[in-house]
Order: sequence, then structure tokens, then C-alpha cells
Amino acid sequence: MRIVVLAGGIGGARFLRGLKAAAPDADITVIGNTGDDIHLFGLKVCPDLDTVMYTLGGGINEEQGWGRTGETFQVKDELKAYGVGPDWFGLGDRDFATHIVRTQMLGAGYPLSAVTEALCERWQPGVRLLPMTDDRVETHVAVDLDGERRAVHFQEYWVRLRASVDALAVVPVGAEQSKPAPGVLEALAEAEVVLFPPSNPVVSIGTILAVPGIREAIAEAGVPVVGLSPIVGGAPVRGMADKMLSAIGVETAAAAVAEHYGSGLLDGWLVDSADTGAVAEVEAAGIRCRAVPLMMTDLDATAAMAREALALAEEVRA
Amino acid sequence: MRIVVLAGGIGGARFLRGLKAAAPDADITVIGNTGDDIHLFGLKVCPDLDTVMYTLGGGINEEQGWGRTGETFQVKDELKAYGVGPDWFGLGDRDFATHIVRTQMLGAGYPLSAVTEALCERWQPGVRLLPMTDDRVETHVAVDLDGERRAVHFQEYWVRLRASVDALAVVPVGAEQSKPAPGVLEALAEAEVVLFPPSNPVVSIGTILAVPGIREAIAEAGVPVVGLSPIVGGAPVRGMADKMLSAIGVETAAAAVAEHYGSGLLDGWLVDSADTGAVAEVEAAGIRCRAVPLMMTDLDATAAMAREALALAEEVRA
Repeated sequence: MRIVVLAGGIGGARFLRGLKAAAPDADITVIGNTGDDIHLFGLKVCPDLDTVMYTLGGGINEEQGWGRTGETFQVKDELKAYGVGPDWFGLGDRDFATHIVRTQMLGAGYPLSAVTEALCERWQPGVRLLPMTDDRVETHVAVDLDGERRAVHFQEYWVRLRASVDALAVVPVGAEQSKPAPGVLEALAEAEVVLFPPSNPVVSIGTILAVPGIREAIAEAGVPVVGLSPIVGGAPVRGMADKMLSAIGVETAAAAVAEHYGSGLLDGWLVDSADTGAVAEVEAAGIRCRAVPLMMTDLDATAAMAREALALAEEVRA
Repeated sequence: MRIVVLAGGIGGARFLRGLKAAAPDADITVIGNTGDDIHLFGLKVCPDLDTVMYTLGGGINEEQGWGRTGETFQVKDELKAYGVGPDWFGLGDRDFATHIVRTQMLGAGYPLSAVTEALCERWQPGVRLLPMTDDRVETHVAVDLDGERRAVHFQEYWVRLRASVDALAVVPVGAEQSKPAPGVLEALAEAEVVLFPPSNPVVSIGTILAVPGIREAIAEAGVPVVGLSPIVGGAPVRGMADKMLSAIGVETAAAAVAEHYGSGLLDGWLVDSADTGAVAEVEAAGIRCRAVPLMMTDLDATAAMAREALALAEEVRA
């Protein structure tokens, strides 16, 4: 079974671990969001790609869901001693090595897709991890700071400001001019199922869909496209999808997110058991829907979610 | 008293610590060797400048004489796990931060002299530390490896090969096209004394003198130029000056090094008490010479050496 998964960071990575457990023989290609990428200290940092890579490769800090296990912060402390910022982004020493290797390879002329493949040689994530694009795309968030409207990098909004102010707009800068990375359209053309994990529908999956050609390739693949709601009981399970949904005028509700993707893209949608009331609304929008437990509390629960998604895909196909 | 010191790495840095103790009110400018600089993992590493900066700024690993105290090696271990080399150069996590800041500033367009000044803002070495040049100069060493003649970077010769093979030639690549860094010629023009610490006469002081204009500025400064022999009893006190001297056809002897610099450049020369027999030979070459203890065993001994050098300078001046 060839499965393509569009993934953001923590939610996507954890779902993928469940999917691998649920379908150990599947051929899984992950199209990773790179809109979160940021240059820090002259180094190229790809938080979402790394979270997927570290999580599936056994190197993740399980408690926080991002960054490396056994991490130390000597480099960060030293940079602070030099008065070189920003200091709000928690790069650890082990993590720095990944960014150093990546930056060196990019500087030598390799595209991000080739660099990601090289990094995965070590981590052996058990999936094919592709960046959505080799081009530079940066998600910016418009906010009001002290009465002044400013556009800040997504990481600055999320990590420095901790999403404490409203997002007025979300713009994937550079997306319009970007091209899907090598392998992305091919993987979609050969896919038998496409899954949207319970990742942020705006800044994770939305950004991937903003790369010209990807949304079309999914719609035209002619295979079941099934998503899992990141909204449970009217709130995001984790993260700040509510702030992002508000910015694009979408209600923070399981049904609203499905309708935002739309029946032209989405064939099936899983909502949490707490949102059983949303099933009828989603189905009325032309999207097959089921209510099942959607909390990724452990690997078993996550694998069960993945099995439900694959079952819904087969139901749609039939 | 305005003193200019030409410095390599460990020997130069330790001598400077003694000089600061011997002449606490002196205005000291250090012209640092950058021929040892190397690009590792896409980062610009300046071993000699950093050794001076860390030593005088209180951050040096005292036992080994280079690198940071309290150092850890997470980044290095990770780079090795990625299979990214070289792994023979011992960059620690704390040290990496220095190279990251430097590389970022160079990438932003600042010359190495401005970057060095910025790094010294933190370390407050108590001297003005100038790179010999802002241009790229790289000391290469010609060697026979498995019957094949190859040119290797000085660091590769010294750190990876541990100077285990003969150096057939030493070439400061790029030196001929380089210009002294801003402040270098001005410092020499205003100097009241110029000192050559017991650094390597070929790859440290020799490389600095290979930057067009520096040797001339020293000779024309019209002030005492006094050096301290790095050779004691026919062998280098530390390092591999013998290998380097052989490569340029100079005997590993205290007198031979003085004659190599020559009376056109050098006015005074200190040899170790063990080399009292060399005094007459050096003086016959037109260079004032004294035999004094030259082992930098501790700060007191080193300060005494610096006092002897300054005393010899005054004797020459008179």
C-alpha cells in the first residue's frame, strides 16, 4: 500500500509513528511542511522536517515532542554570552549538529530534498521524507504589537510570542513562486491513499497545499484522501490552530476544518468521539465522516487512529 | 609603552599573559597569525586568534593550552554520527559557538578584523587583537604520503598527521596577494617595541611576516625588535618547529633561528640558559643576545622572560 502523508511537526510525527505501527508493510512518503523553516545564527533550521526525522528515527525528546533526547545547551549559552540572538529559540547542541550539516550541504549546492535524504540516511525514519519544496517559503503572521501592525516569522509568533496575540493574517511568503520538491508530484501520482494527520490545517497542511501543483495533484490522484481533525470539542488538541483558523476566518470546530479543506479535496474525515454531533454536518458537505477516539495518548491509541483512517479510505474507495 | 607582539597560538598566548603581568600598563597590540585558519563544517575556525583570545580572556583549557575550559563534545559526536568529517579536529560545543558567530558575521559582510574585535568585546583580553590580514591566507605543507607528494592544510599536517612525516615545503597560500588588516601597519608605525614570542618561526611568525608590508613596517619602525627563541637545547620546547625549520632549510638551533630572521629585522634575541654557547654566534650575526631561562612553566617564569625581553629592548635602544 502506497500512502502519502502531509505532515507538520509534532502532531504529524506522532501520527506517522502510529501509521507505521498500523501498516508496517506500507510504503509511506511524507511531504513535510517547510514554511516553519528559519535561519538562525546563519544556519538553516527545519523544525518540522527534523521533528518527523527525530521522532521516527528514535532521537526525539519524548516529553516535549521536539528537539533531541539527552540534549545539552552549551552552544546556546555561549551565543548568549556573546550577546548574539535570538535567544528565544531553544536550539540544543545535538540539534545544532543537524543544522550545521544541513547548512554546509546547502552551501555546497545540494537542494533541501537531497540534504533531507542525506540526513535520513542516519536516522532511518522508515518513511521517505520529502520537503514540500526546495524553494524558500516562510510563513509570516501579521500581528498587532503595541498598536503597530507587523509581520513576524511564524516561529517568532509561536515560540517568542507564544501565540499570545491574535494572528490577523497568515501568509506563506514565497509559496506562489515555489515548486514541489522532486518526488512530491510523483509520489502523489502513485499514491493509493493520501492522509492528512491531525496537524495544523493552516500553517502545516495549509502551507503544503499552498505550493502550486500539490493541491491539484492530490485532487487529481483519484484516490481516497482522508484527514483527522486536529480540533476536538471546539479546541485544538495541542498548539494554536484556533488562532490560525481565526486568522483565515474559519471556525475552530471539527466540521469547519473539513469544510475548509472542502469536498473537492477531502473524501473522508475523522472527528473525535466528543464531536459525534459534527458527523452529519461534514457528511452534508459531501465528505464521508466517522467519530472515533482521536487523542494520541500513546502508540496504541495512535495506531488505532491510523487504522480508522485507512478503514475510512477503503470505505470511500469502495 | 606601546608594544606590538606577533603571535601564533599557544606559545604566543602564554607569552602574552606573562607580558601583561610584566608590563601591566603597557598598550599591547597583538598581530595574530591567521595562516592556521581552516573551514570546518562550513564554519570559519581561527585557532591562533582564538587561543590568544581564550587564554587572555580566561576561557582557555589550561591543561591542553587550546580550546575552552569545561568543554563538551555533543556537536562533534553528532557530526560523526552523520558521517560528516573531518573528525580529527577537536571542536567542542563552546568553541563551536565562537565559530558560528564568526561565520555569521563574515557572511553578513564584516571583515575578520571587525569580527575579531566583536568577539573580544566579550573576552576582554586586555590587548588589541588584530588578525595579520582580512584576506584568506592558508598555510599548506607539502608532504610525501604513500610515495605521493601532496599539499595538505597545516592543520591536517599538525593535527591529523601529528607531524609524523617530514614537511618538504611550507607555503602560505594567498599571502602574496594579502594586505595587512586595518590597524596593523598603524600599530607598527606607533610601536615603541616589537616582540617575537617563542612561537613557531615558520608557520606562526613567518606567516605573519609573509604578508606584504608587515616585515617592511617592522624593519622601518626604527624601534627595538626583540625575539625569544622557541628552540631550547636543539629542540622545540613544544610543537614541531623542528619539522618546519627543516622544510625551509634552517637548523633547529637557537642561533640559527635568529640568523634566519636576520639582523635586518631583529635587534635582540633571547636564548635559553641551556644555549649560552649560542650567544656569541648570534652576536656575531649582528644581533644583541642574552641567555636567560626560557621555559614558560608558570606565570612568574613567563613574566620574567617578558621582563628580560623588554630589558634587552631598552639595551638595544640605548
